[in-house]
Amino acid sequence: MLINRRFTLVRRPVGVPVDADFALVTTETPALAPGEFLVRNHYASLDPAMRGWMDDKPSYMPAIRLGDAIRASALGVVAQSANRDFPVGAWVSGLGAIEEYTLHKPGSGRLIDPGALPSVTNYLSVHGGVGPTAYLALLDVGKPQPGETVLVSGAAGGVGSLVGQIARMKGCRTVGIAGGPAKCARLLRDYGYDAAIDYRGKSYDELLAAIREAAPGGVDIQFENVGGIILDAGLMALNPKARVVLCGLISQYNSSPLPVNNLWQMIVQGATIEGFIMTQYISRMAEAVPQLMAWVAAGQLRIDEHIEDGIENTLPAFLRLFAGTNDGKMILKLA
Amino acid sequence: MLINRRFTLVRRPVGVPVDADFALVTTETPALAPGEFLVRNHYASLDPAMRGWMDDKPSYMPAIRLGDAIRASALGVVAQSANRDFPVGAWVSGLGAIEEYTLHKPGSGRLIDPGALPSVTNYLSVHGGVGPTAYLALLDVGKPQPGETVLVSGAAGGVGSLVGQIARMKGCRTVGIAGGPAKCARLLRDYGYDAAIDYRGKSYDELLAAIREAAPGGVDIQFENVGGIILDAGLMALNPKARVVLCGLISQYNSSPLPVNNLWQMIVQGATIEGFIMTQYISRMAEAVPQLMAWVAAGQLRIDEHIEDGIENTLPAFLRLFAGTNDGKMILKLA
Repeated sequence: MLINRRFTLVRRPVGVPVDADFALVTTETPALAPGEFLVRNHYASLDPAMRGWMDDKPSYMPAIRLGDAIRASALGVVAQSANRDFPVGAWVSGLGAIEEYTLHKPGSGRLIDPGALPSVTNYLSVHGGVGPTAYLALLDVGKPQPGETVLVSGAAGGVGSLVGQIARMKGCRTVGIAGGPAKCARLLRDYGYDAAIDYRGKSYDELLAAIREAAPGGVDIQFENVGGIILDAGLMALNPKARVVLCGLISQYNSSPLPVNNLWQMIVQGATIEGFIMTQYISRMAEAVPQLMAWVAAGQLRIDEHIEDGIENTLPAFLRLFAGTNDGKMILKLA
Repeated sequence: MLINRRFTLVRRPVGVPVDADFALVTTETPALAPGEFLVRNHYASLDPAMRGWMDDKPSYMPAIRLGDAIRASALGVVAQSANRDFPVGAWVSGLGAIEEYTLHKPGSGRLIDPGALPSVTNYLSVHGGVGPTAYLALLDVGKPQPGETVLVSGAAGGVGSLVGQIARMKGCRTVGIAGGPAKCARLLRDYGYDAAIDYRGKSYDELLAAIREAAPGGVDIQFENVGGIILDAGLMALNPKARVVLCGLISQYNSSPLPVNNLWQMIVQGATIEGFIMTQYISRMAEAVPQLMAWVAAGQLRIDEHIEDGIENTLPAFLRLFAGTNDGKMILKLA
């Protein structure tokens, strides 16, 4: 038996999650049944979507049960094993939880090679959820054509920073929206955006004016990670047959849904809004992952990761995603 | 010169159009330049989209200028001609206006055979805008598959009544939403809907409960003509990979845009909202029109037209579309 600290959900958050919604509990790891193995987690991915799993409402994944550790993608090293395919010492990545040790049932987890990537944490970023999400949501849903203009909100975030770079490689003009001058500077300097818009302090009208100035030929693809007035303003700048890739709505994950008023633009422009959910694109990973890794190896794709340390820092690290104070893909170090 | 009565726009409506926004003016028809011809209009189509043309905002068509007659699809008989292809006495349909005589420039208007259809007015309904709109928006955008469930709002209207019938022919289960028990009875009796929902007096929660009861397996295609809480409730009943065909938003044409709160469902379900605008589907008319006429000839497609008489009744007839007191495609008789 090993001592296991787990970051558990004890109350469903209302609005912004607070300390009292969670408990860091200490338990013992269970005895292994045949086929099971126990992974000492080294890193976990913190993603905006996890906020939705804390609510008790229908979604593409079941809600996290009260008392369970917070579900998260994680990776680490096998510490105990009753499965010959996952020997002690092997590195494993998979859907786990914010906890020091995750018990994997047969069929859960996959072996990874920690030396195959510049950093093992890349398995939680470009090789994890955000890389394939950016690649497939942009290419399969957005269908960018050379010369088109792509508007990205949350442009400095884990997904948005990759979307801008991939869109640029596909010959598009890229306009990024982010919060604050430092992030906007990164958009231009690190991710190759052609224009950057700081949404902070801007009204809907001011946002729309800024989008029109940055995209004088209109927007062909709106890659939406944020929602609210950013989404609404973008809709007013769409070109005929524009595609809105609805990848995230982070501005409303801690609140009631934010109203959208400009859906009528979809009729005027014959435009499309399509929601992207990774679970419907698993078969496309076989293309996305090798291409992403090739770009990284060739120095064509910059990956920024923001690593916070310690399971006791889970909540403040998670909340950085919503405050927009993360610099790249948010990852929690657990060992 | 002929005396021409014209229903003109003299002030841009704010909200619901009122008498003072229009003037019925009497003018003389102009002398014809070479290639021009003058059509005595017999019938004009009254469509919700005309409300948008009265506003001074960017759209897929220029705004109607103050002083101009209200733009409308119309048909009638050539009264004077300086164009050998359009001789006096020929029947012509095209984009005209609410006026007794429309001057057509070369390239405008097309010859029609008044005896080819059960009624010449069919050129403004099944053979006009609503037929191809229903056909192409449902089939090209909605892509119905046998066994799928199609939810139609404005289901007793010009477009909705056809959508329900076509979806049924394609093997779908059809659920229609309309206002009042008489219309709901027509949905079941005349258009073959499997279930009918009366939206009148229903809150958002009640609408959603009614949709879930009528579509226990969820909604695969939401064919939206109305907007507001009807759209929002439908979004909550979508199945994975559902398609929302955004054909109209009649509930907000006389008001500010109505907010939509449930766009997050598009992400959860990987669903799509696509705006339909006929001008982007002109090349597909060659398939749609013959198929529609074949169904009519075979008695497989019921066409209901609501004909009001007289140019002086334009406004009350037009407002019936928004009050939902029309029984079928609204047409104005002008001669």
